[in-house]
Amino acid sequence: MTVRKTIFFIFIAFAGALSAQQNGAFTLEDLIPGGKTFYNFYPRIPAQYQWYGDKLVCVKGDSVFISENPDKPQNRSLLFTLGDLQQKSGDKNTRISNVVFPQKGTLLQYFTSKGIGIYDLKSGQPESFFAYPEGSANHELDPQNQHLAYTKGNNLFLLDANGTEIAVSNESDKGIVYGQSVHRNEFGIYKGIFWSPDGQKLAFYRMDETMVTDYPLVDVSARIATLKDIKYPMAGMKSHEVTVGVYDVRSGNTVYLETGEPKEKYLTNVAWSPDGSKVYIAELNREQNHLKMARYDTASGKLETTLFEESHPKYVEPEHPALFIPGNTNRFIWQSKRDGHNHLYLYDASGKFYKQLTKGDWDVTDVFGFDEKGEKLFFASTKPTPMDRQVYAVGMKNEKIEALTSVSGTHSGHASASGRYFIDRFSANDNPGEVFLIDTRKKNIQTIASAKNPYKGFAVPTVESGTIKAADNKTDLFYRMVKPADFDPSKKYPVIVYVYGGPHSQLVANRWRYGSGGWEMYMAQKGYLVFVMDNRGTSNRGFDFENVTHRRLGVEEGKDQIRGVEFLKSLPYIDGDRIGVHGWSYGGFMTISLLLDYPDVFKVGVAGGPVIDWKYYEVMYGERYMDRPQENPDGYEKTSLLNKAGNLKSRLLIIHGDEDPTVVWQNSLMFLKSCIGAGTHPDYFVYPGHGHNMTGHDRVHLHEHITRYFEDFMPQAEK
Amino acid sequence: MTVRKTIFFIFIAFAGALSAQQNGAFTLEDLIPGGKTFYNFYPRIPAQYQWYGDKLVCVKGDSVFISENPDKPQNRSLLFTLGDLQQKSGDKNTRISNVVFPQKGTLLQYFTSKGIGIYDLKSGQPESFFAYPEGSANHELDPQNQHLAYTKGNNLFLLDANGTEIAVSNESDKGIVYGQSVHRNEFGIYKGIFWSPDGQKLAFYRMDETMVTDYPLVDVSARIATLKDIKYPMAGMKSHEVTVGVYDVRSGNTVYLETGEPKEKYLTNVAWSPDGSKVYIAELNREQNHLKMARYDTASGKLETTLFEESHPKYVEPEHPALFIPGNTNRFIWQSKRDGHNHLYLYDASGKFYKQLTKGDWDVTDVFGFDEKGEKLFFASTKPTPMDRQVYAVGMKNEKIEALTSVSGTHSGHASASGRYFIDRFSANDNPGEVFLIDTRKKNIQTIASAKNPYKGFAVPTVESGTIKAADNKTDLFYRMVKPADFDPSKKYPVIVYVYGGPHSQLVANRWRYGSGGWEMYMAQKGYLVFVMDNRGTSNRGFDFENVTHRRLGVEEGKDQIRGVEFLKSLPYIDGDRIGVHGWSYGGFMTISLLLDYPDVFKVGVAGGPVIDWKYYEVMYGERYMDRPQENPDGYEKTSLLNKAGNLKSRLLIIHGDEDPTVVWQNSLMFLKSCIGAGTHPDYFVYPGHGHNMTGHDRVHLHEHITRYFEDFMPQAEK
Repeated sequence: MTVRKTIFFIFIAFAGALSAQQNGAFTLEDLIPGGKTFYNFYPRIPAQYQWYGDKLVCVKGDSVFISENPDKPQNRSLLFTLGDLQQKSGDKNTRISNVVFPQKGTLLQYFTSKGIGIYDLKSGQPESFFAYPEGSANHELDPQNQHLAYTKGNNLFLLDANGTEIAVSNESDKGIVYGQSVHRNEFGIYKGIFWSPDGQKLAFYRMDETMVTDYPLVDVSARIATLKDIKYPMAGMKSHEVTVGVYDVRSGNTVYLETGEPKEKYLTNVAWSPDGSKVYIAELNREQNHLKMARYDTASGKLETTLFEESHPKYVEPEHPALFIPGNTNRFIWQSKRDGHNHLYLYDASGKFYKQLTKGDWDVTDVFGFDEKGEKLFFASTKPTPMDRQVYAVGMKNEKIEALTSVSGTHSGHASASGRYFIDRFSANDNPGEVFLIDTRKKNIQTIASAKNPYKGFAVPTVESGTIKAADNKTDLFYRMVKPADFDPSKKYPVIVYVYGGPHSQLVANRWRYGSGGWEMYMAQKGYLVFVMDNRGTSNRGFDFENVTHRRLGVEEGKDQIRGVEFLKSLPYIDGDRIGVHGWSYGGFMTISLLLDYPDVFKVGVAGGPVIDWKYYEVMYGERYMDRPQENPDGYEKTSLLNKAGNLKSRLLIIHGDEDPTVVWQNSLMFLKSCIGAGTHPDYFVYPGHGHNMTGHDRVHLHEHITRYFEDFMPQAEK
Repeated sequence: MTVRKTIFFIFIAFAGALSAQQNGAFTLEDLIPGGKTFYNFYPRIPAQYQWYGDKLVCVKGDSVFISENPDKPQNRSLLFTLGDLQQKSGDKNTRISNVVFPQKGTLLQYFTSKGIGIYDLKSGQPESFFAYPEGSANHELDPQNQHLAYTKGNNLFLLDANGTEIAVSNESDKGIVYGQSVHRNEFGIYKGIFWSPDGQKLAFYRMDETMVTDYPLVDVSARIATLKDIKYPMAGMKSHEVTVGVYDVRSGNTVYLETGEPKEKYLTNVAWSPDGSKVYIAELNREQNHLKMARYDTASGKLETTLFEESHPKYVEPEHPALFIPGNTNRFIWQSKRDGHNHLYLYDASGKFYKQLTKGDWDVTDVFGFDEKGEKLFFASTKPTPMDRQVYAVGMKNEKIEALTSVSGTHSGHASASGRYFIDRFSANDNPGEVFLIDTRKKNIQTIASAKNPYKGFAVPTVESGTIKAADNKTDLFYRMVKPADFDPSKKYPVIVYVYGGPHSQLVANRWRYGSGGWEMYMAQKGYLVFVMDNRGTSNRGFDFENVTHRRLGVEEGKDQIRGVEFLKSLPYIDGDRIGVHGWSYGGFMTISLLLDYPDVFKVGVAGGPVIDWKYYEVMYGERYMDRPQENPDGYEKTSLLNKAGNLKSRLLIIHGDEDPTVVWQNSLMFLKSCIGAGTHPDYFVYPGHGHNMTGHDRVHLHEHITRYFEDFMPQAEK
């Protein structure tokens, strides 16, 4: 999936503190993840907070503290140290990296690089340790009956507390994969192993990819370059076939759910009924315009009922499994955009619709779960503004919505067992991070931790935000603009538009520095302005805002970005002859689309891992937005950059990882071929051994390379 | 093989005539092979000459003329037209592209895109036509018994005059290949099918590559990128195993010659004895330092005798099969560098050494064959200067050497049947091409055709030549220098060093414009000087001159090129701060080596298809010059550009074809990886779908791209 990784890199790129910067300016080593001094200067909350019932747990360094009364969090006592726990565990030499307090009972889980342990908070003794078998991955522990499920190669296994390994699958054909995430992580899918609530059964995905075309990746770092095929179902071509098996731990039998024909549908959002007897699957057709919510009996594998259906002329995109209400085996929450915004709906297990819990011209963006009695559901939304995330609780009985937070910015967190207390993680454009403790009964909010501003005392580039009108002349679009610390409005500055622009993204929000990343700061230090705007087609603005791009990706997005450029050109301090554009992945596609659709606007572009023609992208994401090539030939034709290669007038640097499994290398190589045929001259660079993003220290090199290109062809000071 | 293709492209790039150039300057479309107007302006001799006995044949357009008395070539008559022959042939719609007159008898061969025909000059009637079967390649016709041999896939077939196809091999394993060239075209090998002189037997190569590593090439132009593995034996790794089979046309039996162990030796320069009973093979060990000249009986397959052996502490490189003297089944000529220069040796079939026919501080460069009685052998050599090629005849009985040509320049050609007449194709730095007819008896030379100077009337860049001393302070090295037409010695010019520098090459010679190519002219038009010099390690200067680079490729060559730069810097009209370097293949290796070994000398480099580490190059060429990596770890280490990537200070553009089967892509990709690790920043470009050289119209794009890079970072006028 193109999007999420990219955003991750954008959002975590802050830096700071005293020592690494040179001549008063921060270096890329300070500003870019993977940089040698990046983690020294990354703004961090100095402790981690959890709930143990209604007690507040604070993990700080080696110490785990507990506050019996969260109203007075400073009254805390040392519960144990990670060092103590490590001493008591089987492996004294392996550091404990994380602990997770239980929602029920007294069994805490702790994690090391070698396995997962269980520690009884009551007895103060480790219960058991599940060492990861060699070559294993995708570990999922059921702490109740103490089984560790995991995959090795393409097969699925269990390990019991005695260390006995049980093979759930025994498949020799590598094209058939058990227990792993399917459908290329679309539809909110991120794993392939699902323990039943009672830990008696294990639902798992089985994916048959034998019929999917191999895409040949080549590892050039071997003594002689070596093939590493991946299965890559391209838009319009044969896709993989997924089923769901249910393994019964006691009997050792596996029942496959009778999901039937056609085999190419999407089995999304697997959820267990609270009693562990049923599995709910949101089944979407390959066309992605019709969803059926199905319930299966896991003893027989039979389809019991279709609870409800959703359809839309463009697409339906289920991303969240049914969420059952605690203490009620019958009722669950379903998230849907069916009324034009993402909202919460209450159903019962028979499919009976009770009520719409949230409603309005805003989106539910996160669900933080219930209190233990199931009376309130905590969530975040874009109400009152898409720039913010405020936390709310909705009553299950009265649908009453109560705002827990109000300070403008980005809030998230989770409630204590009773729901009385809420840990609220907060940041805003002028706030690098704070943790509030909210007492919902007393309406009391206190700060329990805060991150230092890493730039305190430095003259750093400023970030501001605002709105402009979209190309529809109606919709407000949010932007941020980064300006040099010594910005002088009487001068003329070159500007770089950083763009992503695709679905599942929001770059501009009211969080620290409006989400501005390290490279933006670096370029502003050098005397560039940086402009970032979320065009129509991006997220958290309602379904119509997003799906206006359907079957014509890049077209409306481009019109909006050009409105951004027109706005920039209207500013007296912008040099309209020195406008550059840079983006990665979907943003790489946007960058090249902008250069070719508007050849006189941008002087320089840098596109990383770009989609070039949606026919080279995968089935799940690609067909949602573009349909199949055979269904939408005009749309594919119109948006293909291969057909527009002759329009290139700007300087364009394209960058790709030679082992990119997401936007396969074929994209940019075929674009080069088209440019060569058309007589145009992009520039190019390859990061050997990298996938869709350059990670590790090479990411610093990447940003040096991008920066040099802008300096070569759009110098900050006119030569 | 790295070298020959490259040279081909360098040498054929002339251009000219009136209409295509713009604003008085020729464009790349005019100057680069593949350019739209290149062939309109390529200097050409307007006719093609052959011998039919002692009669002179002239093919001009559609007409085939014959002159009974070559002393009066203008007295000629029309023998036939290609149109007539086409009418008489089986396929009237397919144009005849070439005719070859017989050395003996009356059967002429003619060629079309669909097959080979035989035409009886006596009867004036076509005899037969061998249509190429679909998917066939490597066609070799025996005109006497009228069998066409050819390959389809990995197998070898015959077609008789009745159109019956006979399978000589029937191998289903694609890793075993029959009838094709072996040993990656090294050792003068260019085919795998060898008819016996009487056409009764067919010798052929069988190559088992099943044990050779696959190198994964990927074709990105397919709907989904597709693997196209090639067998690529890398230096030090397992190589293929070759044997020679002899198929008896009458019996249909195949006998394999008992070439024995070790299986990894090289079976080079297959030659038939004149009576068709024996096969001679120059067998070289994998170490390439010991040659055995072996004779096999083709009826039994037994080794009869080893005629002679040659060895050398560095390497032995046989490149020419035994050449038997006409009318003498017993004596043959062998070419060897054993005395330090390539000379001709006379042996008999038992291995008895008779005499050294040529001797001296010069090389035999071409052998043009005998007169029909076998009294004289015609050849070209570097006597009296390596810049020239003069033609000589040596008497088989008296070893007397007679010079046929004397005008300074490049001569080649062939003698008439009696040896009295010689067609002499000539060019020189100031002469685009001429054909002389030499009467060796009367010592009379007359011009029978000449090419027009395509630049007549234009102010074109000048080319001059000279010598400088090599880094050994002894050896003269030849250079050429291209200067703008309006060259002004009081100005300061940037200069581009074009380099190849590897074995089997000579860039600077006394032929048209000293061998200067179209791109050199283009750059001189733009105001650059271009300098080309043949360093030690290149060809036609004796074996010591070539093998000084052994086990340390690039080192001595680099020292010599730096002498060239020092010479350039000593010239008052050269701007020493604007020296660039460009080369392809071995020249790409040289370009990057120069940049990394001498980081303060060159401002800009452009390297195409470069070898980066000789461990990634193939066994045959690589181990000759570098030995195996396990035998010469220091040499590989010292010459590997991976280890020096951190030295890069200049601007460097690297270009590679993504399907390069010669210098595999791994080379430049791994160099990028090393640079990324070392924090240096080369630039890069890829030509998708291309192999080791960019051919067709894309070659124009390539030269635009190279030119732009020099203009970007080393502008002809200081900005």
